[in-house]
Amino acid sequence: MIVKRFYDERLAQASFMVGCPGSGEAIVIDPSRIVEPYLEAAAAEGLRITGVTETHIHADYVSGSRELGATTGATIYLSDEGDADWKYGYANDPNVRLVKDGDEIRTGAVRLVVRHTPGHTPEHISFVLYDESASEEPLGAFTGDFIFVGDVGRPDLLERAANIKGTMEKGARVLYNSLRKFVEYPDHLILWPGHGAGSACGKSLGGVPVTSLGYEKRSGWAFQTAGEQDFVEEVLAGQPEPPKYFAHMKRINKEGPPILGAISIPPRKQTDELMRLLDAGATIFDMRPAGEAAAGLIPGTINVPFEKSFTTWAGWFAPYDAPIYLISENETEVLEAVKALATIGIDQVGAWFGHEVVDEHQKSRDLATIGQMQAREAKERLDAGEVTIVDVRGASEYEEGHIPGSIHVPLGYLADRADSIPKDKPVVFQCYAGGRSSIGASLWVKLGNPPPLNFVGGFEEYEAQGLEVETGSGKEPVHA
Amino acid sequence: MIVKRFYDERLAQASFMVGCPGSGEAIVIDPSRIVEPYLEAAAAEGLRITGVTETHIHADYVSGSRELGATTGATIYLSDEGDADWKYGYANDPNVRLVKDGDEIRTGAVRLVVRHTPGHTPEHISFVLYDESASEEPLGAFTGDFIFVGDVGRPDLLERAANIKGTMEKGARVLYNSLRKFVEYPDHLILWPGHGAGSACGKSLGGVPVTSLGYEKRSGWAFQTAGEQDFVEEVLAGQPEPPKYFAHMKRINKEGPPILGAISIPPRKQTDELMRLLDAGATIFDMRPAGEAAAGLIPGTINVPFEKSFTTWAGWFAPYDAPIYLISENETEVLEAVKALATIGIDQVGAWFGHEVVDEHQKSRDLATIGQMQAREAKERLDAGEVTIVDVRGASEYEEGHIPGSIHVPLGYLADRADSIPKDKPVVFQCYAGGRSSIGASLWVKLGNPPPLNFVGGFEEYEAQGLEVETGSGKEPVHA
Amino acid sequence: MIVKRFYDERLAQASFMVGCPGSGEAIVIDPSRIVEPYLEAAAAEGLRITGVTETHIHADYVSGSRELGATTGATIYLSDEGDADWKYGYANDPNVRLVKDGDEIRTGAVRLVVRHTPGHTPEHISFVLYDESASEEPLGAFTGDFIFVGDVGRPDLLERAANIKGTMEKGARVLYNSLRKFVEYPDHLILWPGHGAGSACGKSLGGVPVTSLGYEKRSGWAFQTAGEQDFVEEVLAGQPEPPKYFAHMKRINKEGPPILGAISIPPRKQTDELMRLLDAGATIFDMRPAGEAAAGLIPGTINVPFEKSFTTWAGWFAPYDAPIYLISENETEVLEAVKALATIGIDQVGAWFGHEVVDEHQKSRDLATIGQMQAREAKERLDAGEVTIVDVRGASEYEEGHIPGSIHVPLGYLADRADSIPKDKPVVFQCYAGGRSSIGASLWVKLGNPPPLNFVGGFEEYEAQGLEVETGSGKEPVHA
Amino acid sequence: MIVKRFYDERLAQASFMVGCPGSGEAIVIDPSRIVEPYLEAAAAEGLRITGVTETHIHADYVSGSRELGATTGATIYLSDEGDADWKYGYANDPNVRLVKDGDEIRTGAVRLVVRHTPGHTPEHISFVLYDESASEEPLGAFTGDFIFVGDVGRPDLLERAANIKGTMEKGARVLYNSLRKFVEYPDHLILWPGHGAGSACGKSLGGVPVTSLGYEKRSGWAFQTAGEQDFVEEVLAGQPEPPKYFAHMKRINKEGPPILGAISIPPRKQTDELMRLLDAGATIFDMRPAGEAAAGLIPGTINVPFEKSFTTWAGWFAPYDAPIYLISENETEVLEAVKALATIGIDQVGAWFGHEVVDEHQKSRDLATIGQMQAREAKERLDAGEVTIVDVRGASEYEEGHIPGSIHVPLGYLADRADSIPKDKPVVFQCYAGGRSSIGASLWVKLGNPPPLNFVGGFEEYEAQGLEVETGSGKEPVHA
Repeated sequence: MIVKRFYDERLAQASFMVGCPGSGEAIVIDPSRIVEPYLEAAAAEGLRITGVTETHIHADYVSGSRELGATTGATIYLSDEGDADWKYGYANDPNVRLVKDGDEIRTGAVRLVVRHTPGHTPEHISFVLYDESASEEPLGAFTGDFIFVGDVGRPDLLERAANIKGTMEKGARVLYNSLRKFVEYPDHLILWPGHGAGSACGKSLGGVPVTSLGYEKRSGWAFQTAGEQDFVEEVLAGQPEPPKYFAHMKRINKEGPPILGAISIPPRKQTDELMRLLDAGATIFDMRPAGEAAAGLIPGTINVPFEKSFTTWAGWFAPYDAPIYLISENETEVLEAVKALATIGIDQVGAWFGHEVVDEHQKSRDLATIGQMQAREAKERLDAGEVTIVDVRGASEYEEGHIPGSIHVPLGYLADRADSIPKDKPVVFQCYAGGRSSIGASLWVKLGNPPPLNFVGGFEEYEAQGLEVETGSGKEPVHA
Repeated sequence: MIVKRFYDERLAQASFMVGCPGSGEAIVIDPSRIVEPYLEAAAAEGLRITGVTETHIHADYVSGSRELGATTGATIYLSDEGDADWKYGYANDPNVRLVKDGDEIRTGAVRLVVRHTPGHTPEHISFVLYDESASEEPLGAFTGDFIFVGDVGRPDLLERAANIKGTMEKGARVLYNSLRKFVEYPDHLILWPGHGAGSACGKSLGGVPVTSLGYEKRSGWAFQTAGEQDFVEEVLAGQPEPPKYFAHMKRINKEGPPILGAISIPPRKQTDELMRLLDAGATIFDMRPAGEAAAGLIPGTINVPFEKSFTTWAGWFAPYDAPIYLISENETEVLEAVKALATIGIDQVGAWFGHEVVDEHQKSRDLATIGQMQAREAKERLDAGEVTIVDVRGASEYEEGHIPGSIHVPLGYLADRADSIPKDKPVVFQCYAGGRSSIGASLWVKLGNPPPLNFVGGFEEYEAQGLEVETGSGKEPVHA
Repeated sequence: MIVKRFYDERLAQASFMVGCPGSGEAIVIDPSRIVEPYLEAAAAEGLRITGVTETHIHADYVSGSRELGATTGATIYLSDEGDADWKYGYANDPNVRLVKDGDEIRTGAVRLVVRHTPGHTPEHISFVLYDESASEEPLGAFTGDFIFVGDVGRPDLLERAANIKGTMEKGARVLYNSLRKFVEYPDHLILWPGHGAGSACGKSLGGVPVTSLGYEKRSGWAFQTAGEQDFVEEVLAGQPEPPKYFAHMKRINKEGPPILGAISIPPRKQTDELMRLLDAGATIFDMRPAGEAAAGLIPGTINVPFEKSFTTWAGWFAPYDAPIYLISENETEVLEAVKALATIGIDQVGAWFGHEVVDEHQKSRDLATIGQMQAREAKERLDAGEVTIVDVRGASEYEEGHIPGSIHVPLGYLADRADSIPKDKPVVFQCYAGGRSSIGASLWVKLGNPPPLNFVGGFEEYEAQGLEVETGSGKEPVHA
Repeated sequence: MIVKRFYDERLAQASFMVGCPGSGEAIVIDPSRIVEPYLEAAAAEGLRITGVTETHIHADYVSGSRELGATTGATIYLSDEGDADWKYGYANDPNVRLVKDGDEIRTGAVRLVVRHTPGHTPEHISFVLYDESASEEPLGAFTGDFIFVGDVGRPDLLERAANIKGTMEKGARVLYNSLRKFVEYPDHLILWPGHGAGSACGKSLGGVPVTSLGYEKRSGWAFQTAGEQDFVEEVLAGQPEPPKYFAHMKRINKEGPPILGAISIPPRKQTDELMRLLDAGATIFDMRPAGEAAAGLIPGTINVPFEKSFTTWAGWFAPYDAPIYLISENETEVLEAVKALATIGIDQVGAWFGHEVVDEHQKSRDLATIGQMQAREAKERLDAGEVTIVDVRGASEYEEGHIPGSIHVPLGYLADRADSIPKDKPVVFQCYAGGRSSIGASLWVKLGNPPPLNFVGGFEEYEAQGLEVETGSGKEPVHA
């Protein structure tokens, strides 16, 4: 038997291929929409992909099940659990087969037993894996967003991201019971979860790709609570703000994502077109590193460096009903970005621009310079009442410790809450280590404000210098 | 002033960018349809592309003028010379400006003077280049398919490729007169032609990218003829067969090529889809090296290795009204191939397959093996009447020397003339050095014949061994 | 805690990095000698490598512990178990610390407990991993060549590869007892072995990168035997021939591998230098795909395609006391090859040649052509007594089934046993799927024989066609 | 005939390959020390390199003639002109052949006639090219540093770079006479010079790769002067400061550069090693883009971004008797940098560091932040006497126009003249467009000063805003 894990660093998302060399066939679990890597891996192992499945209707990325099904002709196995609100809209596609708890997906010696494991979502299923050529015992399970390494899937996404009121507590109770049932599997069961560290689908996912049921039973917090109520309270506490685009993902994945087929590299354009787009208010992501962009930012662009969190922040800021545009180093990077954007359903990239547009822009319009500030200076100027510090981290990070006097506006909500930030003094953006505050600074300029300062060292540097820290929910500006 | 040459090895096609650092603007001459390199180069030099032009309605590739105009917003300068049959169909596009002999295209200190230089085609123009910041003298000229290094543009394409009878002699005379007029420019004029060695637009193009008018006057054959009649005879003799797709190119370029915009990487598919396509008679190019393909060829595919002549042979064999398919090493190669195909207007690539399909195919259907043969063996078996040797080189190559007893069928016409090849004995394909004979061998199998042999060393090896050579037009099978 | 697995496809070798984000430090286990990937991964996770260790004195590749120690300044933890014959020669290096059963290696919350697990080798240790921030229970263990997925480390290498008589049965008994002790760990323990499918360090390693102790106890053959004797017999049966270079590796790793420091790309040379080297009998690996090489092989070169098994076969055929040379596609491939060769201690690559040398060679000397043969033809000609088929697979593969009448010479011993192969008829090389037979064919030519034939489909195709199969040790030619 | 031009963007240096398809041989002129591209190009054209030559003893890069001779076995043709001071030290190498005016180098139909063209240097030769298969007339000439496009080679390098007093005027006169003799060649002669725009070997080299003798005669300033004296004065005026390493290059090239053979990628090291090197005062080039480095600079490193001028500035700042170190993005970039450094003889690269060292450094030591300043602010603060502006451009740039009140210290002399810069106020670095001032700012910090400011827009932005400009040699700080 062959088990291969695929990991999308930008989404912190894991998918898997299980294959049987005997039958020459493979099944892919929770595929991303960019399917070439599965085809490549299958080819390398001498396998054909004949089955595709997914653990649940994902909220954090566009499912690749339909894409991979269309590309390979494989059968798509979808959950038939959950109530009417959780039925797949493309269940009648000819190559879809619905599965329920206890059903099996087989190829050669590989057997996947479907188990209904609701909580994160009502229709969530897990797949218990048997290698029939080796043993009658199960080897492991693909648990999607049910059990993570050291954590469990959050049951509040539905309410927080999709705004379906009153579901999160119910989900937490259902999850508790799913866990109670699942622990009956033997301790030796290897667990392959659907996310690693950094996903917004759980709060404290570890840096280990794999765990075992026995180890989770002994060390995972979710298995150590005093009882259901205790579990419910703990699982709902301190979850990060779900990105706004999660609601969108949920809908797309339920209805059935459009088939991409080909991957397109948009045309490169020159500066005059950029000017036109800026004037028209288009969404333009400048993918340069933060330091470079700070030294010369084109006002109106959003600086989302092409790093680990590119996909997430692009999802927060992209309109899903109009094209976006990229400022990038070269065509190769654009292609990679187009693929990353497609994983969260941003399928319209209208054009791209090379780095030369920065200098070209300066010939006729001003660039903005984001000044860099260090911890001690930030503190002193804040204390002297000279600046306003805006902390753009998440709520739980802010609560655990922040600069006294700083204002809290999570980056994702900056545009919505910009009015509540006082503009009488220079504004200093700050996060944990400079990533989000840089994005925030460019967004602040796009919103029509003068260039702010960026406290790049962020709370990490601040704390390391032993400066005064405040805890609690502090000063969040009042929402309109 | 900046002059930059771009060279497409697969088309042996040159294009140029001329820019003025002062004005920050650049003009591109004879662009390929893949326009990113021009934008990249302009950006690197701090220039914007504001003008695009072309020397004539090309027959050997799809003009990128319209694409580059659409991408950059540049003005497109098109020839208004030639009679009604040679007027551009998109001359009314808002960014098109028609030019005639004596007109000028300027930016900053760069001045291009349009000269009507018909012969290769009736509307052909050349551009004489002045750097006004340096001198009143012209520096050089972009001569397109008018004057090459050591040769001149062939005036017979129209008749031979586009089947417009009676035009080639007339064209030759017109060309003669264009040359007579052009030699009035000073000897020091540098000439930048539109093609290098290997193009089907001229018969003996050299490996030097540039020449000067004075040198051509003294050494180019076209300037040494005894007079017009002499010139006409010589220029029409020995021209290679123009690819069939040339007629198609001519039409597209005249009407106005469709705008590509984005470049698309088609989806990868698995073996079952390949089988289906094979059964449906689709055109599938196997891009593997000839040696690899010979060791295990999927019958029905055409082995066109992804080397220098890929574009040309793809043009010969692709249907222009249906998608083609690729067998390729990886996505990067596919992207490069998609771009190469777009340069000659093959815009529909339906899907691609990885190399694994060869082994997969063998599980249910036979592969064909093309046996390799060496010179002496080929000769002996031919002499013994055991094999039929098919020489797939061009007519002039064959005439200059071939294996006595070999049959001549130029590769491009193999499918058309396959019936005339005797099938009572094993067929051996042969060309100059193994490239074309390999393609021919795979095509032979696609036509339903048993796997032939390939004399890979070809005429080069045969000749090197001092074996008997015959000249003249020899045994060409009778056309239907 | 962070756990990251590194996998060298060519060696089927796994190494691991375990890090603690809290302390910012990481430990690497069983590193390859090409250390950049560890530094890159540590940097990406914000970790510094401060510890390096290895499970045992490897026989199949050169340990990277000393290299990584030298590069990073990390402490190197080496086993102090085993008798005097198994003591590391560089134990007195200032950054080496010896460890014994029960010792601990710690950084931040990461704790590795050393367990002596002899059998594969006497000094073999495993590392039981604890994440102290999460649990008092162990999460998993790095088992090196002790326990694999579905198999255990072979205890016969010492005797078979290093020629130390009488050790393999003793090793098997020791291994049995190591296993008996190790099963006392909880079922939930995740096991990360040092090899995956395709390694010569175990006979049937699976395609799953990870297992659990509980699963192995229930399904691994080694835990199901009737008792020690039964185990001993089974573990010693059917092990593949260890490559000759294994003895060399063992010695290097024990004494302490030389530090590479920089990685060097050798100079490219032209054909005349190749000729000189051929005449001098140098070892030249032609890295082209087998099909390409078969169509035109330079006699005297060994065709070892740059694929999965490149490293292994290079190890078999490289002299360890003279430089080797490469025929390669380009500098990038050469760099990759140089790295791959360094992993098994082939540190002298004298020069490389581009593919053009094949055509250049042909201008003055003959190329060899390896004819391709198919199953039915091979069988018929063998039955007719026209050819000699040489099966170059391993002994156990041959015993399980071979073509009746074929001669058995494992590829690695072809040069040694070439005299015993009858040369009165054309020789046909055959393996399972064409990889080894291609190498064998080129080696056969290098040994001064006329070009043989290659039955490329191999035993896989033969068997698939339902042709007659014989089992047993059959006709192996008598050794000199 | 085949003529191929190779261009090293970082050195603005051109080299050439001339080959004859008939003989299958090629000659390379003025090769760089990184020779793989010549071998690759020769292979692609089916040629072997059998001759290597150079126009003169270069001062701006290490000649690759000896390297290419060693790699290919080709004959090296060296100038035997010039007096005893200009004789090659390796003229007795077995594969060296000395040539004088009128000698010929031939292969097949290619003939290169050696012409002595002193001035830039006394032994300088040019090569007049004939294609004997085409004409008795010469096609062109490889003019090295004799005639450029629109300029001529500077005759002052010897005096200014190598400090050989009294040679520059003499050189200018010799050059004048070389030009007078050379114009006797026909106008149509194509000229291929050894440098393009941006080289320090001439003052105003254009962006056109090629010119003709007739065009230069009519438009080049050097051919339009009123007489010898006039020429001498003009050619010596306004030449840029030659880099200090030029003297070193001259010596190496005369004596014979050491053979590189292999190209080595140095090992990657971790932060503690960087700390140690910083403390030891080692030369460490941080290759990040200027904006990134400005936002967090490791004091003690020199920020030389890996862009066009990397090689030149590395040459200015590298000690030629100790290793240098690199901070780089990845191994691929390091390899490219190692090659670029080798072209100017920086052969010892001790180690490299990834970008993670910046964050790691910050954990225990401070980073420096280089503040960015814009034109109007710079002007206002200068006028208010709040800052000192240091203009690090070349003397002629400064003289043509500078900010009134700015101090002039060419970047290359910053370390030498740092004492003369007042340190009582914040220092602002400024150049033309931000490249050199960024390097200067990092060097300033390395010299032990507090982080300066960087006026990134530079004189280009200043001038564009219509601010007051002063001309003349202005305030240069007095040298010690």
